[in-house]
Amino acid sequence: MKVLEQIDGEAGQRVVDSLAEVSPELGHQVVAWAFGDMYARPELPPHDRQLVTLGVLTALGGCEIELEVHVNAALNVGLTPAEISEALLHSAVYCGVPRAINATLVAKKVFAERDLLPITNVG
Amino acid sequence: MKVLEQIDGEAGQRVVDSLAEVSPELGHQVVAWAFGDMYARPELPPHDRQLVTLGVLTALGGCEIELEVHVNAALNVGLTPAEISEALLHSAVYCGVPRAINATLVAKKVFAERDLLPITNVG
Amino acid sequence: MKVLEQIDGEAGQRVVDSLAEVSPELGHQVVAWAFGDMYARPELPPHDRQLVTLGVLTALGGCEIELEVHVNAALNVGLTPAEISEALLHSAVYCGVPRAINATLVAKKVFAERDLLPITNVG
Amino acid sequence: MKVLEQIDGEAGQRVVDSLAEVSPELGHQVVAWAFGDMYARPELPPHDRQLVTLGVLTALGGCEIELEVHVNAALNVGLTPAEISEALLHSAVYCGVPRAINATLVAKKVFAERDLLPITNVG
Amino acid sequence: MKVLEQIDGEAGQRVVDSLAEVSPELGHQVVAWAFGDMYARPELPPHDRQLVTLGVLTALGGCEIELEVHVNAALNVGLTPAEISEALLHSAVYCGVPRAINATLVAKKVFAERDLLPITNVG
Amino acid sequence: MKVLEQIDGEAGQRVVDSLAEVSPELGHQVVAWAFGDMYARPELPPHDRQLVTLGVLTALGGCEIELEVHVNAALNVGLTPAEISEALLHSAVYCGVPRAINATLVAKKVFAERDLLPITNVG
Repeated sequence: MKVLEQIDGEAGQRVVDSLAEVSPELGHQVVAWAFGDMYARPELPPHDRQLVTLGVLTALGGCEIELEVHVNAALNVGLTPAEISEALLHSAVYCGVPRAINATLVAKKVFAERDLLPITNVG
Repeated sequence: MKVLEQIDGEAGQRVVDSLAEVSPELGHQVVAWAFGDMYARPELPPHDRQLVTLGVLTALGGCEIELEVHVNAALNVGLTPAEISEALLHSAVYCGVPRAINATLVAKKVFAERDLLPITNVG
Repeated sequence: MKVLEQIDGEAGQRVVDSLAEVSPELGHQVVAWAFGDMYARPELPPHDRQLVTLGVLTALGGCEIELEVHVNAALNVGLTPAEISEALLHSAVYCGVPRAINATLVAKKVFAERDLLPITNVG
Repeated sequence: MKVLEQIDGEAGQRVVDSLAEVSPELGHQVVAWAFGDMYARPELPPHDRQLVTLGVLTALGGCEIELEVHVNAALNVGLTPAEISEALLHSAVYCGVPRAINATLVAKKVFAERDLLPITNVG
Repeated sequence: MKVLEQIDGEAGQRVVDSLAEVSPELGHQVVAWAFGDMYARPELPPHDRQLVTLGVLTALGGCEIELEVHVNAALNVGLTPAEISEALLHSAVYCGVPRAINATLVAKKVFAERDLLPITNVG
Repeated sequence: MKVLEQIDGEAGQRVVDSLAEVSPELGHQVVAWAFGDMYARPELPPHDRQLVTLGVLTALGGCEIELEVHVNAALNVGLTPAEISEALLHSAVYCGVPRAINATLVAKKVFAERDLLPITNVG
């Protein structure tokens, strides 16, 4: 839970809360497995885990809720808005322009909420 | 049509209705092929067909409209909310946590409409 | 830009605009690469490019924003509402009924905005 | 069946045959529904149906068997190798470069079998 | 591990073994999480879990290795070849004919290895 | 081309070569757009681009050819086998265990070719 709070903050907690009445076990798995087991492993730094996660969620599509959590998480572990934006642009080569646009619009929403727009230093 | 009504009820009919002006043939295919041909086949009971369908729709993602129809259908053929919730939790192993969360939030909406929350007997 | 305006009109411009603050480069890529490089190539007529694009976006799912652009584009290059509707119906064989329904409902929205409903000449 | 033979030729028949022992009904559906119902509909010419199908199969990925059938079918209904190649190149914008490469390598195999390489008139 | 052996038998063990040198932790997660935590939960019987799993893997596509494990697992928990074949046929409505064909050809391979072809009692 | 050689080495060149007869333009796009435009941008270091790419390709599935190129590329820009393996393990949370297994087996093949097995320092 502490890892979840540090990395995902409120957005992650809201997802877990939304599952309480319908699937407490899924909420528990998110916390225990994803965060307890995975994020605590020292083999890959949080910064790198978030880049992989952004790539996966962008490619999957239809993961707006989770992408919002992880754009926040990416900022929390030190990635800049310009780096996140560039990572999503980069993904367009591999999963196509529409998925990259969709993910970028989610990032825009998070950046706006954290007063980080317009981003600087990008193309 | 009778099979559709029994299994999918109102939610299925609403989807067919929404197609009337733009693609009556697609609405017809849903009724005739999916329900007439498929669901009437005795080789697999309705209970089992809904479990397969929940697995497919959860994995595809972006099928909220159809998932709503089939969570209702799953309840109509006798699956309990706890079993449906568990099936979606189970799918997380194979198609990842985000798809499972998305499907579970659709199930939550259906359960709430049918006054079945909080579900019991899970986790 | 001229190609974009002719083919995609306002809907395409709105997507590029929505990216301005968060990823101007992605907006630039959409215009320069997708439209400048691709659509200008004479090897495939615009009519055929839109059919391929409709197939890809329907199959991907979760591309409502882009599908709206390209249903408009398909109309702009001369496809009729009945042909577009049929193309989406056809895709159901290959990517399943839910993806076809989702795309058809996006097409319905565009047809309604352009006062083209109910479509005629389909099944 | 006649439609299947005209459009898909041997490659389509091989797929139906491969299903005979394990799922004759699925083979039957391919013939009856996909080809009997869909391809016989006059709302969209075969040329256009193949373009949509190429788009869908390229985007889905992992459909090498089916793509082989439909690259053959596309040639049978009059699309040139250069047009097919261009359609797959075009799809890269929307579903990414890897899916386009995979589909193009399937097309290459079919073109080679029909002695149509190197293609001319592209880029 | 005992659950894995009972349900997945050799095919599951081969997958875990293949991961030993490159990702022992992933092999461990498969055993501990997927099988230890999930399959041991009484909320859904093994028969139903396999139906959901078949649906998910068919829809995902590109999961031939895993599908082979789970067609075996489905047989091990009491599903008949005809029921498995029908489940995959059923999935065609939702994820399209190509994914259903691909999964059916994997099932055919498993059925052949266990001398269960031709299946009876289907369409 | 120089960027391609430095980052992707032989494996990337083989893909471009394989496209020469069937789609020289797609090969050109891979080199010019993906590598010329994207990888040359300073907004994200190569190390980070490869992590995003691994995430995208793992989630897409069915990209064995491309994943092989990019596991090589990841090694070439300084990621260790243990980090790559961990990144793929990490992706299991988001896109499911089967996609992670498939990607890990591709990584295993590349590691074996470069004599990097068994990897050390992982769980």
